[in-house]
Amino acid sequence: MRNCLVFDGVCVLKTLRLGICGLGTVASGVVNVLSRNKEKIASRAGCNIEVVQIASRRKKDTCDLTGIDFTKDLNAVVNNPDVDVVLELIGGYIPAKELVETALKNGKHVVTANKALIAEHGNGLFDLADANKVSLCYEASVAGGIPIVKAVREGLAANHITGVAGIINGTGNFILTEMRDKGRDFADVLIEAQALGYAEDDPTFDVEGIDAAHKLVLLASAAFGIKLQFDKVFTEGISHVSTDDIKYAEELGYSIKHLGIAKNIEAGVELRVHPALIHKSALISKVDGVMNAVVVTGDAVGETLYYGAGAGSEATASAVIADVFDIGRSVSNDATQIVPAFGCATHLLKDALIVPIEDVVSSFYLRAMVTDAPGALASIASLMSSHDINIDSISQNEAEQVGDMIPVIMLTHEVKEAKINQAISAIENLDTTAGTVVKLRVAEF
Amino acid sequence: MRNCLVFDGVCVLKTLRLGICGLGTVASGVVNVLSRNKEKIASRAGCNIEVVQIASRRKKDTCDLTGIDFTKDLNAVVNNPDVDVVLELIGGYIPAKELVETALKNGKHVVTANKALIAEHGNGLFDLADANKVSLCYEASVAGGIPIVKAVREGLAANHITGVAGIINGTGNFILTEMRDKGRDFADVLIEAQALGYAEDDPTFDVEGIDAAHKLVLLASAAFGIKLQFDKVFTEGISHVSTDDIKYAEELGYSIKHLGIAKNIEAGVELRVHPALIHKSALISKVDGVMNAVVVTGDAVGETLYYGAGAGSEATASAVIADVFDIGRSVSNDATQIVPAFGCATHLLKDALIVPIEDVVSSFYLRAMVTDAPGALASIASLMSSHDINIDSISQNEAEQVGDMIPVIMLTHEVKEAKINQAISAIENLDTTAGTVVKLRVAEF
Repeated sequence: MRNCLVFDGVCVLKTLRLGICGLGTVASGVVNVLSRNKEKIASRAGCNIEVVQIASRRKKDTCDLTGIDFTKDLNAVVNNPDVDVVLELIGGYIPAKELVETALKNGKHVVTANKALIAEHGNGLFDLADANKVSLCYEASVAGGIPIVKAVREGLAANHITGVAGIINGTGNFILTEMRDKGRDFADVLIEAQALGYAEDDPTFDVEGIDAAHKLVLLASAAFGIKLQFDKVFTEGISHVSTDDIKYAEELGYSIKHLGIAKNIEAGVELRVHPALIHKSALISKVDGVMNAVVVTGDAVGETLYYGAGAGSEATASAVIADVFDIGRSVSNDATQIVPAFGCATHLLKDALIVPIEDVVSSFYLRAMVTDAPGALASIASLMSSHDINIDSISQNEAEQVGDMIPVIMLTHEVKEAKINQAISAIENLDTTAGTVVKLRVAEF
Repeated sequence: MRNCLVFDGVCVLKTLRLGICGLGTVASGVVNVLSRNKEKIASRAGCNIEVVQIASRRKKDTCDLTGIDFTKDLNAVVNNPDVDVVLELIGGYIPAKELVETALKNGKHVVTANKALIAEHGNGLFDLADANKVSLCYEASVAGGIPIVKAVREGLAANHITGVAGIINGTGNFILTEMRDKGRDFADVLIEAQALGYAEDDPTFDVEGIDAAHKLVLLASAAFGIKLQFDKVFTEGISHVSTDDIKYAEELGYSIKHLGIAKNIEAGVELRVHPALIHKSALISKVDGVMNAVVVTGDAVGETLYYGAGAGSEATASAVIADVFDIGRSVSNDATQIVPAFGCATHLLKDALIVPIEDVVSSFYLRAMVTDAPGALASIASLMSSHDINIDSISQNEAEQVGDMIPVIMLTHEVKEAKINQAISAIENLDTTAGTVVKLRVAEF
């Protein structure tokens, strides 16, 4: 803290000076919110917070840059001796990673909204932050404006957290909600989501669950105190989810949502992103559209849920500034690094064993298309029984007959994924079955 | 911090020493959770957390007291030089207030779950904490285990918070949920709630909204940075809510919940606790049973929601320990008082003008019992019109005829409470109306 408002030789209110890399949606939101709520934020943080420099390829008029030094040189910000905290808001890996590294090496705190960077390179970056006794904060990387990292890491600090599960990709949730409400196909809704700006031109990160996987590893590390293992996340997207299955699930009392699920179990840690059936009695099943929600379960607190906007200029800015506020509060109290990235000191983080998806236990929704012949349903039921899998319900939906094929829909009891895969192969080999069997996991809340 | 684990002359892990006043449900939960998750909590807080002394009138076996000094003298704890943090978990005003005052004067941090004490005496107590440079924390006082104070005060620090509204009394929510699901009367369900231990023998605090009002002023002060004004909260209970009105509201697409609502508007601050209709499209309308949920709306983040157990031994303990963790983290970093009670320094808190209920604007649900005569509905409609009140819907429910009386049910547009009261008097004076008109407010989310 090199800047200080002085009266009669006494520092009355320090100033935390921010340098921002990037001038996109989130950066503009940060400048706008900091300007609009300047006094309020200062009174909360115990110090003034001021943007002194912004670097971006292009100057834009999405926010008022009066009094802020504008440069096209991103390196200027991370090397600026008058900058205390660098906000990395350009996204992607290059040059974001190098900028963050340089800033940390220069003894600057870093706040980022870059989930991909932290999920894939976080272990090294947090070590670098530790070595330089500065903070690297990432609240805005997960679930937009929802203060979920703070809740997990501080608010629930008393708990052995057993699970974190959430709708952490607004684009995917918007698509599934539209498919359900309007009976429209995935491809059709995706085009609308792109037109509305919810989905990128290349929607892979969102619809294939990569974005959710990035966020999930951050949540899991904060909740369980483990190192990041992005490469171990099991990831399944929503492009194969059909309006038919959404409808059948609804009839059974379930919503289909794209979930990130992390569980802290005896065998290790489950890290998986996939579409899942959620019973409608669970609050999270009611989270629709672009909204995000995360359920955190602790041994003391039980089940808690956090809900809000998962994206957007000012919602994400709210989380970026919350991190700045934490740094400001610690700096204004002459403390450093009061918020370890994942709750505990980096050297205490565990290398958790990530459970392979084949060993994950859950209930399943299966749909097989069978010929409308006597005994077709019975033969599937007996086959499940011979594989030692209990069926919760099985029915064939006459109303949905296509030609001479009828969908048979099942909900199973809990069983290992490897075992259900064997049973599915066997069902697909039956003479009465056509094509492949649809398999969706059921998430319990 | 007077206690330290020393290796080779260097303090490697400090110990934060707790003294607990009380050995009830919450205190037992604290001892149990601290013991079970000892290592995890220490690694997060950066210091050991140890209960050194407990004072209570009676020794109980609800937790393991091995290694903890037990005394019947509550004053021993607050005067114990070996205690760094006092947990006030006895509740009520006497002797809780004096104990907290003594502890603060003795330079000890205090953590309390006592909403009544803080709501009614907080202004003085926080001043005392400031004067002694210690923290007085109250996360457990609001919404049990949900880290809502932290979310409002820190996670949303970037925001101008415009509103806080929540289901913050589990007993009331349980009663309303049972009334809806089983069509049972208030009095009937209250007896069950008492038998289940959800309601006290004297249920006044819960069902008349006093408990919710205590929590609401704490939330409002943390959210808006204002002094506590418990005496200004408008409070209406749920004992007058009938199963009929719950049913009619459901038919109109609304749930009836007992809400605490604080709004930060131009005219001042609204502070009110009352039953309210919530449209079923709002997530909070789905929060049932003893669960709590709080919606916080900020100018940057938009609407966020926090959900979890509002009571219970370990859920509340989770919040108590979260406060201890914050103190531990600050102490282990040689900082003091990093968390101002209501976000900003006490001297910056504003004396907000509390808006009188007569000036509060909302939509209303009204039910009048009218004679089944032609024109009865029309005369009410025209009377509303002559009072300049727009009606959103009005209908008379033939199926619910009692003798020759029929309920007429209305939803109005937004209007000042004083104005709706005048219209209600006029309706009650009509020859075709019997008895009083039922009035319930509609809460918008």
